[in-house]
Amino acid sequence: MPIITVKIAKGRTLEQKQEFVQAITNEAVKTLNVKKEWITVLFDEYERDNWATDGQLHSIKFGEGFGKQGTE
Amino acid sequence: MPIITVKIAKGRTLEQKQEFVQAITNEAVKTLNVKKEWITVLFDEYERDNWATDGQLHSIKFGEGFGKQGTE
Amino acid sequence: MPIITVKIAKGRTLEQKQEFVQAITNEAVKTLNVKKEWITVLFDEYERDNWATDGQLHSIKFGEGFGKQGTE
Amino acid sequence: MPIITVKIAKGRTLEQKQEFVQAITNEAVKTLNVKKEWITVLFDEYERDNWATDGQLHSIKFGEGFGKQGTE
Amino acid sequence: MPIITVKIAKGRTLEQKQEFVQAITNEAVKTLNVKKEWITVLFDEYERDNWATDGQLHSIKFGEGFGKQGTE
Amino acid sequence: MPIITVKIAKGRTLEQKQEFVQAITNEAVKTLNVKKEWITVLFDEYERDNWATDGQLHSIKFGEGFGKQGTE
Repeated sequence: MPIITVKIAKGRTLEQKQEFVQAITNEAVKTLNVKKEWITVLFDEYERDNWATDGQLHSIKFGEGFGKQGTE
Repeated sequence: MPIITVKIAKGRTLEQKQEFVQAITNEAVKTLNVKKEWITVLFDEYERDNWATDGQLHSIKFGEGFGKQGTE
Repeated sequence: MPIITVKIAKGRTLEQKQEFVQAITNEAVKTLNVKKEWITVLFDEYERDNWATDGQLHSIKFGEGFGKQGTE
Repeated sequence: MPIITVKIAKGRTLEQKQEFVQAITNEAVKTLNVKKEWITVLFDEYERDNWATDGQLHSIKFGEGFGKQGTE
Repeated sequence: MPIITVKIAKGRTLEQKQEFVQAITNEAVKTLNVKKEWITVLFDEYERDNWATDGQLHSIKFGEGFGKQGTE
Repeated sequence: MPIITVKIAKGRTLEQKQEFVQAITNEAVKTLNVKKEWITVLFDEYERDNWATDGQLHSIKFGEGFGKQGTE
């Protein structure tokens, strides 16, 4: 513990994920007072067909290509 | 907020998902007293190999094709 | 199935929850083509100390009383 | 109810999943005092690019092939 | 890994939980080919006001006392 | 989006949570290329009776007081 789950649109690279994992793991050690080897980070990646806000699926609101550019 | 997550077998069309998103978003505005733009809806779609009830995976209980017809 | 989870700030009444459950269950039957008795709805209620957006906990951003009035 | 979710690295066979489902369903009936037909089990399978411990993604820590052998 | 989450109505004793944890941990080691020290089990306990099936909250369907007897 | 959920033992202060929220929100903006106002962070806090590793509930393994000191 802790277990940190990141729900996010598809389109991040391995390098982005690794950089984020490293940063929030170090932050958790510093701020939340946990041992580094206890920390788990999971990414749940979503297609735009499966994420909606304001009553609209993002594949309809933004189009299909947007998520691939990591802008969402 | 709120964040509404729908775990369901694969097989719904984009149109079904959008219709459901729209309806429950409007219902949340009306019943739960939240602003429309605050509402997120996520779909977590499952293969039948990954969903079990009554001690049995659904791919074994119902076969593989069933979920594709949106009947589950 | 499906299993629908609603993450929301504390403060809704039993009547609001029941009305929402009934409405989205009926909508799922109609739109997603599932049997009514298969549908589960769960509420995960959050204190404002445990929900943040835009880099700020809601207990700091909005104060403690807000959620109790069901306005968030 | 209950709803039991198993987050695990990809690579288990259908037979392993079914055996696990059957065993924990029977255990829940015996220990937690629930009816067998009420129990749902879900598998959330993860690529190694989406699972990190100790500040490192498992695809970097262990390589890509490991998960396929069901050893993690 | 794996991370096993058990969503269940409130009312189980510490002894029931520990017995269930031990049994499914051993089963995961045997069936899913994971090391015992890698396995996490979490319980998410629900009030009956927050769990609904078939369009009805369980506090309305079954009454408030039921869950405390561990029968659900 | 993204939605970041932090499952952790009870015992962190409001200040610790706010500091962590701020740091990982800023990190997500920088590394994952998302707008700050789109980022949600949720804390799911657990009693030690509801968290187990290595086949043992933490209330049994570590005792009840430990989590309150924020050391886990």
